[in-house]
Amino acid sequence: MTAFDTGFPSVRQIQSFIKNKTPIEIGLMTNKTLEGVVKWQDQNCLSLVTTSQEKILVWIQAIAYIRYR
Amino acid sequence: MTAFDTGFPSVRQIQSFIKNKTPIEIGLMTNKTLEGVVKWQDQNCLSLVTTSQEKILVWIQAIAYIRYR
Amino acid sequence: MTAFDTGFPSVRQIQSFIKNKTPIEIGLMTNKTLEGVVKWQDQNCLSLVTTSQEKILVWIQAIAYIRYR
Amino acid sequence: MTAFDTGFPSVRQIQSFIKNKTPIEIGLMTNKTLEGVVKWQDQNCLSLVTTSQEKILVWIQAIAYIRYR
Amino acid sequence: MTAFDTGFPSVRQIQSFIKNKTPIEIGLMTNKTLEGVVKWQDQNCLSLVTTSQEKILVWIQAIAYIRYR
Amino acid sequence: MTAFDTGFPSVRQIQSFIKNKTPIEIGLMTNKTLEGVVKWQDQNCLSLVTTSQEKILVWIQAIAYIRYR
Repeated sequence: MTAFDTGFPSVRQIQSFIKNKTPIEIGLMTNKTLEGVVKWQDQNCLSLVTTSQEKILVWIQAIAYIRYR
Repeated sequence: MTAFDTGFPSVRQIQSFIKNKTPIEIGLMTNKTLEGVVKWQDQNCLSLVTTSQEKILVWIQAIAYIRYR
Repeated sequence: MTAFDTGFPSVRQIQSFIKNKTPIEIGLMTNKTLEGVVKWQDQNCLSLVTTSQEKILVWIQAIAYIRYR
Repeated sequence: MTAFDTGFPSVRQIQSFIKNKTPIEIGLMTNKTLEGVVKWQDQNCLSLVTTSQEKILVWIQAIAYIRYR
Repeated sequence: MTAFDTGFPSVRQIQSFIKNKTPIEIGLMTNKTLEGVVKWQDQNCLSLVTTSQEKILVWIQAIAYIRYR
Repeated sequence: MTAFDTGFPSVRQIQSFIKNKTPIEIGLMTNKTLEGVVKWQDQNCLSLVTTSQEKILVWIQAIAYIRYR
């Protein structure tokens, strides 16, 4: 679960990924990575559409980092 | 434990998996994956019936992602 | 720690394992598994007696899933 | 952090390990194990004296299970 | 999520990394390390610019340690 | 995050490490270990100076145990 307040820079940063359809790489706590574009976010999850058009619900508890340009 | 409010898109997304019997793949924080259909969800767990009809109580704390079509 | 409310299906599911002495397999976040019967549960732990009659206090924080018939 | 209420069976179970100097094996989330006797417990930690008389402060957040006779 | 109070030494320490553009090494819970300079922090994340000018949003939940000079 | 109350034995134990400059070994959840002396503690972190005089901010969420003499 994350502190979900649109006043937080981290929540606004993800909001900008959604708005600008920024391609991102999510590094998971399992050392796997997922690449794609974020559709929406809430307290628990990010909804990601991958580069191969797969739909993935990513739990925020599992996120180590997001790399972006 | 998860923020369990049916107003959240992530909770509603899982509700739709239940209603539509959507086949899903759960990626665990252990790097294992489980495939099946969700029967119910609550604050702590998802109840999954696997493709080989096994019953598995999956702790939401252990979920990294859910992949679905 | 878990949301421990006997109104939750997950807590009631474990209550039924206890009542019916259901043999279960606990998959831990460490990728180890433990097999046995649950004696009691609380906010923090499950008390398990294994198939080889060992007593194990299992922390709910370490549980990824429970497989049962 | 753990729900630390002496009304919980899990907290009382550890209290009995302390009182009876029960030799225990702690399985950590790192897959390491520690063996010894518990001196005290609080919200965050167990204080363990190992079989080789080493003093170890074990964080409850890192505990997967405790095996005991 | 972290206890985010500018009264805490740990939050002030990171504030000083930001102000002084201190080069740091972040050790993640996945055993990976990230090197760079912190741009901002909030309850959930640190914003890092790496030595190769990549932008990385690092979740505080994934941080094991920060090494610095 | 940790329950940070100087009434807790675990917080007082660390306070004594600081006061007495006790050499400690921190076992992390990543199976790495760090050796050194604790300078200060708060809700989120311990500040460690290693045996090779490096400064490390250690997140309490990443600590499995502390070994000490």
